[in-house]
Amino acid sequence: MAEFGDRILAVYEFAASDRAAARRFAKQIAVEQTVEMPLSAVPGPVRQAVVGRIEELEPAGSRRWRAVISYEPELATELPALLNLLFGNVSMMSGVRLADFELPPALLRTFTGPAFGIEGIRRLSGAHRRPLLCSAIKPVGLSAEQLADLAYRFARAGVDIVKDDHGLGEQSYAAFADRVERCSEAVRKANRETGRNALYFPNLTGSLAAVEERLEKVRAAGCRGVLLAPMLVGLDWFQTFAARGEVAILAHPSFSGAYMQRSHGIAPQALLGKLFRLLGSDGVIFANAGGRFPVSQASCDAIALNLRVPWGDLRPAFPVAGGGVDARRADYWIERYGTDLVLLVSSSLYARRDFERAAFELAERVRRYE
Amino acid sequence: MAEFGDRILAVYEFAASDRAAARRFAKQIAVEQTVEMPLSAVPGPVRQAVVGRIEELEPAGSRRWRAVISYEPELATELPALLNLLFGNVSMMSGVRLADFELPPALLRTFTGPAFGIEGIRRLSGAHRRPLLCSAIKPVGLSAEQLADLAYRFARAGVDIVKDDHGLGEQSYAAFADRVERCSEAVRKANRETGRNALYFPNLTGSLAAVEERLEKVRAAGCRGVLLAPMLVGLDWFQTFAARGEVAILAHPSFSGAYMQRSHGIAPQALLGKLFRLLGSDGVIFANAGGRFPVSQASCDAIALNLRVPWGDLRPAFPVAGGGVDARRADYWIERYGTDLVLLVSSSLYARRDFERAAFELAERVRRYE
Repeated sequence: MAEFGDRILAVYEFAASDRAAARRFAKQIAVEQTVEMPLSAVPGPVRQAVVGRIEELEPAGSRRWRAVISYEPELATELPALLNLLFGNVSMMSGVRLADFELPPALLRTFTGPAFGIEGIRRLSGAHRRPLLCSAIKPVGLSAEQLADLAYRFARAGVDIVKDDHGLGEQSYAAFADRVERCSEAVRKANRETGRNALYFPNLTGSLAAVEERLEKVRAAGCRGVLLAPMLVGLDWFQTFAARGEVAILAHPSFSGAYMQRSHGIAPQALLGKLFRLLGSDGVIFANAGGRFPVSQASCDAIALNLRVPWGDLRPAFPVAGGGVDARRADYWIERYGTDLVLLVSSSLYARRDFERAAFELAERVRRYE
Repeated sequence: MAEFGDRILAVYEFAASDRAAARRFAKQIAVEQTVEMPLSAVPGPVRQAVVGRIEELEPAGSRRWRAVISYEPELATELPALLNLLFGNVSMMSGVRLADFELPPALLRTFTGPAFGIEGIRRLSGAHRRPLLCSAIKPVGLSAEQLADLAYRFARAGVDIVKDDHGLGEQSYAAFADRVERCSEAVRKANRETGRNALYFPNLTGSLAAVEERLEKVRAAGCRGVLLAPMLVGLDWFQTFAARGEVAILAHPSFSGAYMQRSHGIAPQALLGKLFRLLGSDGVIFANAGGRFPVSQASCDAIALNLRVPWGDLRPAFPVAGGGVDARRADYWIERYGTDLVLLVSSSLYARRDFERAAFELAERVRRYE
């Protein structure tokens, strides 16, 4: 795509009966996303400068077409404007999917991307080559003491990152401050016993009004990373927070799934693989194929690829495969995705009668890849 | 639904072959949205306290079912947690639609809702009973002077709210500060000539880092309202900003359309009609049936209904019908939706050879309903 290098590129896939219809529809997108009015009423110089340009138009399967539309970067000097340009009003059309996007180098450089990235998280965890193992403490409803006990057991079993379940917030069952203090202390205790370096990542997703106060508690507890759901806290805020580089961030896909429909929305590899990385996720949790959610293997492969592929000066981010990963298939997934991977395994451990034993065995298996 | 009055209610619609399958799927949602792990591993008291409860399960058309699931309000003491509870992981399932939701009174009271609402916007505009007419200045790419000239012409023609197109942000063609100053002055000038009270609402949607500075300019220019796209600026931030009550807010649906698919996502009347109102929109722009976007009349009717129906202490908000409303059908839409309505008409005016004349005629038509 180098030939359009100074423009923003968006790749859309959509249904159309033939090339002429596809061209009309691509034109409709290009107009809707920019001037959003009858072209006849747009002054010539403005039309030339700002209406999206159809750069390519190709068949993409049965009655599906793929159009590359390029946009003038001046239209998207800020993140909300970029989101609006790529998929704002198009989101209200039918059967249109943003399959990919690319930013010109000057615009790409305005994004900090992952402050830690794969290397940064490896540095924190002390695992230099092998995949990392992550497990969630849950369910919501347990006391801080009970959650801390789970954190202790996971860390002692050899889990690298013990994270809060994303449903854990500020609830009376286990108040945030108490939970973070107890869980981080529990993980430290396990580390003293094992000589290892497990990390505890609390869930910072919550009211923006409370974030600074909670971050203070996260810092005081010595936590080096957090869980954050970009679609729940807002993408621009997420980006700004990530750019501060204070804590490593595992991004959670909650509330993002509606975008990732088969024939409408934003392709998973564009949303989780590119956008979430661009905004500063050091690791991105995605629902893995074969788990609880109906996702294709091809999408998961593409997410993992996009998170790690060279992209401007952006650090690569960890693919974090979750959503029902079976502990017994760990080797399969490591061989499929490679060792720059975080395996997020919780349910299939909890389902075992002796979850500590199961976690221990899984951690041992993951450690063989060092 | 009063019998479950102290719990959060979510109404989901989904596909299932028979009642047993529907019950299994509803149970899967109730578990996924709360404990998110095998029930066998959840301690009994926690299961009792936090797992969602299936309150009703009814057929909803051919192979579609509707389940009312109730949740413990303690799970959602903050907006991001509420979004997560209602449609977090469910968003990654397939063919599930959040059709409606209801909050218990105590939780509902934590939301400020519209600070101005219909009455507030009527007070600002001086139009006490009739529908209001809104038009957008566009396209992006015009100079601030050209945009101000459009604002002047619309206001002189009798348009009540002249708003920025939502693609207008901070671009070199017409810098925000310059645009806001010129456009508000242009509308004031028109008001001096007509003796009317047209309002100018600039688009505040943009980088959160810049919002306070831009708001200062909005205030300095004397603007009493703004355009904001909740999905682009983030829902929690949107809510916090709206609660300050400084300016009236027209909410724009950009980037929200992927949620509003026919068989997956969040029903338009729940997303635009309830959530956007809950978060403090004084008016909510929706793509109207028969316009440029593929939306059903039933959805539009339901959005308009939900925005204005009594709901706790929340003020009613204006339905703002847009997205290709034809000026010639103004009376039809006013009769359909009633006079507590903002008609957003732009493209069908721009498409006319003499758009000022067209705007004038439309404004006259709308004024007959006073």
